[in-house]
Amino acid sequence: MENHVGVAKDYRDPLPAPLIGLMELTKWSFYRAVIAEFIATLLFLYITVLTVIGYKSQNDTHCGGGVGILGIAWAFGGMIFVLVYCTAGISGGHINPAVTFGLFLARQVSMIKAIMYMVAQCLGAICGVALVKAVQKSHYKKYGGGVNELSDGYSTGGGLGAEIIGTFVLVYTVFSAIDAKRKARDSHVPVLAPLSIGFAVFMVHLATIPITGTSINPARSFGPAVIYNQKKAWDDQWIFWVGPFIGAAMAAFYHQCILRAKAFRSYRSSSRI
Amino acid sequence: MENHVGVAKDYRDPLPAPLIGLMELTKWSFYRAVIAEFIATLLFLYITVLTVIGYKSQNDTHCGGGVGILGIAWAFGGMIFVLVYCTAGISGGHINPAVTFGLFLARQVSMIKAIMYMVAQCLGAICGVALVKAVQKSHYKKYGGGVNELSDGYSTGGGLGAEIIGTFVLVYTVFSAIDAKRKARDSHVPVLAPLSIGFAVFMVHLATIPITGTSINPARSFGPAVIYNQKKAWDDQWIFWVGPFIGAAMAAFYHQCILRAKAFRSYRSSSRI
Amino acid sequence: MENHVGVAKDYRDPLPAPLIGLMELTKWSFYRAVIAEFIATLLFLYITVLTVIGYKSQNDTHCGGGVGILGIAWAFGGMIFVLVYCTAGISGGHINPAVTFGLFLARQVSMIKAIMYMVAQCLGAICGVALVKAVQKSHYKKYGGGVNELSDGYSTGGGLGAEIIGTFVLVYTVFSAIDAKRKARDSHVPVLAPLSIGFAVFMVHLATIPITGTSINPARSFGPAVIYNQKKAWDDQWIFWVGPFIGAAMAAFYHQCILRAKAFRSYRSSSRI
Amino acid sequence: MENHVGVAKDYRDPLPAPLIGLMELTKWSFYRAVIAEFIATLLFLYITVLTVIGYKSQNDTHCGGGVGILGIAWAFGGMIFVLVYCTAGISGGHINPAVTFGLFLARQVSMIKAIMYMVAQCLGAICGVALVKAVQKSHYKKYGGGVNELSDGYSTGGGLGAEIIGTFVLVYTVFSAIDAKRKARDSHVPVLAPLSIGFAVFMVHLATIPITGTSINPARSFGPAVIYNQKKAWDDQWIFWVGPFIGAAMAAFYHQCILRAKAFRSYRSSSRI
Repeated sequence: MENHVGVAKDYRDPLPAPLIGLMELTKWSFYRAVIAEFIATLLFLYITVLTVIGYKSQNDTHCGGGVGILGIAWAFGGMIFVLVYCTAGISGGHINPAVTFGLFLARQVSMIKAIMYMVAQCLGAICGVALVKAVQKSHYKKYGGGVNELSDGYSTGGGLGAEIIGTFVLVYTVFSAIDAKRKARDSHVPVLAPLSIGFAVFMVHLATIPITGTSINPARSFGPAVIYNQKKAWDDQWIFWVGPFIGAAMAAFYHQCILRAKAFRSYRSSSRI
Repeated sequence: MENHVGVAKDYRDPLPAPLIGLMELTKWSFYRAVIAEFIATLLFLYITVLTVIGYKSQNDTHCGGGVGILGIAWAFGGMIFVLVYCTAGISGGHINPAVTFGLFLARQVSMIKAIMYMVAQCLGAICGVALVKAVQKSHYKKYGGGVNELSDGYSTGGGLGAEIIGTFVLVYTVFSAIDAKRKARDSHVPVLAPLSIGFAVFMVHLATIPITGTSINPARSFGPAVIYNQKKAWDDQWIFWVGPFIGAAMAAFYHQCILRAKAFRSYRSSSRI
Repeated sequence: MENHVGVAKDYRDPLPAPLIGLMELTKWSFYRAVIAEFIATLLFLYITVLTVIGYKSQNDTHCGGGVGILGIAWAFGGMIFVLVYCTAGISGGHINPAVTFGLFLARQVSMIKAIMYMVAQCLGAICGVALVKAVQKSHYKKYGGGVNELSDGYSTGGGLGAEIIGTFVLVYTVFSAIDAKRKARDSHVPVLAPLSIGFAVFMVHLATIPITGTSINPARSFGPAVIYNQKKAWDDQWIFWVGPFIGAAMAAFYHQCILRAKAFRSYRSSSRI
Repeated sequence: MENHVGVAKDYRDPLPAPLIGLMELTKWSFYRAVIAEFIATLLFLYITVLTVIGYKSQNDTHCGGGVGILGIAWAFGGMIFVLVYCTAGISGGHINPAVTFGLFLARQVSMIKAIMYMVAQCLGAICGVALVKAVQKSHYKKYGGGVNELSDGYSTGGGLGAEIIGTFVLVYTVFSAIDAKRKARDSHVPVLAPLSIGFAVFMVHLATIPITGTSINPARSFGPAVIYNQKKAWDDQWIFWVGPFIGAAMAAFYHQCILRAKAFRSYRSSSRI
C-alpha cells in the first residue's frame, strides 16, 4: 500500500495556509471558528475540572467513592472525542494551544488564526473553570481547584519530559488524522479521527496523572491557575507551556520531515499573506 | 474545508418540519416511531436504574464492590449509544424530552410529534422503572429508587446550572451529529453519531453525578419519581425539567444562529400544517 | 428519512433462509462457519471466565484488587465486539444460541444451520472453560468456576425476567444491525455493528451481574456448568436457556412485526428446502 | 453473503511478499516503516510501563488509589488502538514481533522486513522503558520495572498456555482486519480495524494480568527486562517469546488454512527475491 511510483497521486495535500493571514479577518467563518474554539474549551474545562473536584470530594467522604483516577482520565479523553467530533468541521477542533502551535508550524493555520485561537482557548478555559467554581462553591477551593502542579517526589526535568512526550503522542495522532494521503487510502483514518485523538488524550492521562496531573494543553493549565490563583500553580505554570509546545514541535517535525519526507515549507510565503 | 464560496452547495438541508403536523397522524411510520421511543426509553431506564440499585446494594455488603460510579456513568452513556444506534433510523433516537424539545425549536420535528414523543418517553420511563422494582423488590426502596435529587451541600442554583450546561453538551452534540452540511463533508459525522452522543451522556454523568445524580433528561427523572414517589424526589422534580429545557434551547440557539448563521426559521409556516 | 412513498425501494431484503436447509450440508462454507462459531465461543468463554476467576482470586488477597465488576462487564462486552468483528463475515458472528434462535425465527438461518451452530457453540464453551481450568488449576474450583447462578435474595421470577429483558436488549441490537433497510440508509448501521452489539452485552452485564451473574447466552452458562459440575449450577441452568430464548423471540417479534411491519414469514416454505 | 459461486471475485488478495526481500532495502519507504515501528513501540512501552509504575506507587500510598488493573488493561489496549491508527498506513502498524512473525508466515512481509521490524521494535521498547526510568527515577526500581514474570502459584505450562491463547486472540483479530475479501464486503472491517485490534489487546490483559502480567508481545517483555535487569525477569523471558510466536503461528494457520481454505503459499518463491 506504500509505493505508487509512476502513477498519478491519488490524494492532494491542501495548500499551505498563508503565513500571516490578514485576509481571514474579513470572513464570518473565521470568527465562527474562534467562537467554536472558545465554547469547546469552555465545555472541556467545565466537565473535566468538575469531574476532578467531584472525585476528590467524594473520595474524602466515602472511602474509595467517586469515579476514580480512571474516571478522570476518561473525562479528559472522552470530552476531547466529543468536542473534536462536534467542532472539527467548524474550526478544526484544536481546543488546545499546543495543537494549534503544531499545526501552525506545519503551515496548516496562519499566524493570525493561531494567535486568535490561543486567546479564545485561554478565555474559554477561564470561563469554564469559573462555572465550576460557581457550581461547586466551597468544594472548589478545598479540593485544589483542578490545577496542574508537579507532584511531590518528581523533578522539574521529569515533569517537563512527561509533558513533552505526552504532547508528542497527542499531536502525532492529530497529524496522522489529518494527513491527506492517509485519508485518501485508509477509510479508518477520517472516520475514527475524533475517537483516536480522544483516546490519545485518555492514554496520556492514565500514564502521567501521578506526575503533573497531566496538562499536554496549556489552556487546560492556564484556566484553573487564573481562577484558583495560588503561588504553586503559577510557579509551575511555565512547565505546562514549554513542555507542550516542545512536544508539539517535535511531532510536527516527525510527521512532516520523517513520515512525509518533505522539508518544512518555506516561511517566506510572500504572495499569499 | 470551510469556505466553498461561489460553488453549488454540496449538501441540502432538510425542509423544516411542519409546525403542527396534523397530517403525520395518518401515517403508520408516525406510530411506529412513537412505539420505538416508548420501548427505547423503557430499556434505557430499566438498564440504568437497575445498575444504580445493584451498585448501591453491592457497595453496602462488599466494601468497594459493585461497578462504581464510573460503571454507572458507563451505563447511562453506553445505553444511549446502543439505543440511538438502534432507533436513529426509526424515530430519530431522541429517548429524551429535552432532545425532542431542542429539535422542535429547530423545526426538525412538528409540535404533534414532539408532544407524542414526550408522552411516550415518560410512559416508557415509568414502565422501565416498574420493571426494575419487579426484579429488585426490597432493594428498590432501600437503595433510593434511582431518583434524581439535589445532593446535600449544593444550592438549587448550582444544581440547575449543572443540568443546563450538561444538557447543552448533549444537545449540542446531537445538533452536530445531524447537521446536513457536516454529514456531507466529514465522514466521521454520520458514522460515529451514536457513539459521540453516547459519550456526551457518559461525560456529563462523570461530572455531575455528585451534584444531582445527573438527569439532563426529564423522562429519566420523571419515571423514578412516579414509582419511588417520595416527597424529596417530587420537590426537586422541576429542576430536571426546567434545567434540561433551558440547556436544550441554548444548544439549539448556538447551533442554528451562531454555527449555521441562519435565523431561527419562522414559526408561522402556514402552508405546511 | 422515513417515508420514501412512490419511489423504488433503495434496499433489498435478503431472501428468507430455507426452513430445513439440507442443501447447505454439501458446502464447505457451511462447515467453515460452524468451525468459526466453535472457535469464537471457545475464545469468548476462555477470556471471560478467566477474567472472572482472576478477579475473584485477586480480590481475595489484595483488598479492592482485580479488575472490578466493571472490568468483568467489559470482558464480556469487549470480547463480543472483537469476535463479532472477526466472524461476522464468516458465520454471521452469533456466538450465542439465543441469537441463533432469534435469527432462525426471523428466517435468517435454516433449522439445520441453527442446530449445528448451537452444538458448536456449546462444545466451544465447554472447551474454553476447560482451558481456563487447565491454566488456573486450584483457583478454578475455589472461586466458583464462572458459573451463572441466581444470587441470594432474588426470586426465580426476578432472575428469569432479568434474563428475558437482557436478551431482548442484545437481540434487538442484533436485528437493528442486520436490517437491510437501515444498512442502506444510515452509514453508522453497518460500520458500528460489532461495536454496538458488544456494548449491548456490556450494558446488560453492568445491570444484572448482581442478580444472575448475567447469562443472556445459554452456551455461556452451559460450558461452566459442565466443567464445574455442581448441583446449584445445574438446578438453575434452565433459567439461562428459557430466559434467553423467550427474550430472543420477543426481540424477533418486535423487530419483524412492529418495526418492519411485516408478518412473520410463512413457515411452510415448501420449494426451498 | 458467503457464496458467490460462478461470479467474478469482488476482491483481490495482495501478491505474496517476496520471501527474502533484498530489493526493499533500496527504498526510502522501507526505512520510514522501520522508523515508524521504532517510534510506535517506544511510545507504547513508555505510556504503558509508566501507567503500571504510577498505579503501583499510588496504590502504595493511597489504599485503592491509582487507575486500577482495569486502567492498566486500558493503557495497553488503548495505546495499540492509537498506534495502529497512526502507523497502519506507514508500516502496517505491527508494534509487536509476534504480529510480524504471524504476517511473515502468511507471506505478508518479507524475511528482511520481518527481521528489521523486530529489531526496531525491541530497540524502541528498550528506549521507551529507559524514558520511564528517567521520568520516574527511584519509583521505577521500587515498583518492579514493569517486567513480565510468572506470578506465584501458576505453573510454567499455565503461563505459557495463557500467552499462546492470548496471542492467538490478538493475531486472529489482525488477520481478520487485513483480509482483502472481508474488507471488500463488510464496511466495518477496514473502518474499525485499529479499534478491534486495540480491544483484543485490552481483553487479553483483563484475563491474564494476574498470571503473567500479560505479554503477548516479546518486545513488551524484552524492553523492561533489559532496563530492570533482574534474574527472575530474564529466567522467565523465554516464555514471552515462545508463547507469543506459537500463538501467532496458530492464528496464521487458522486464518489461512481453515477460514480462507488455501494452503500456505510455497516458501520457494524463486523469482521474486
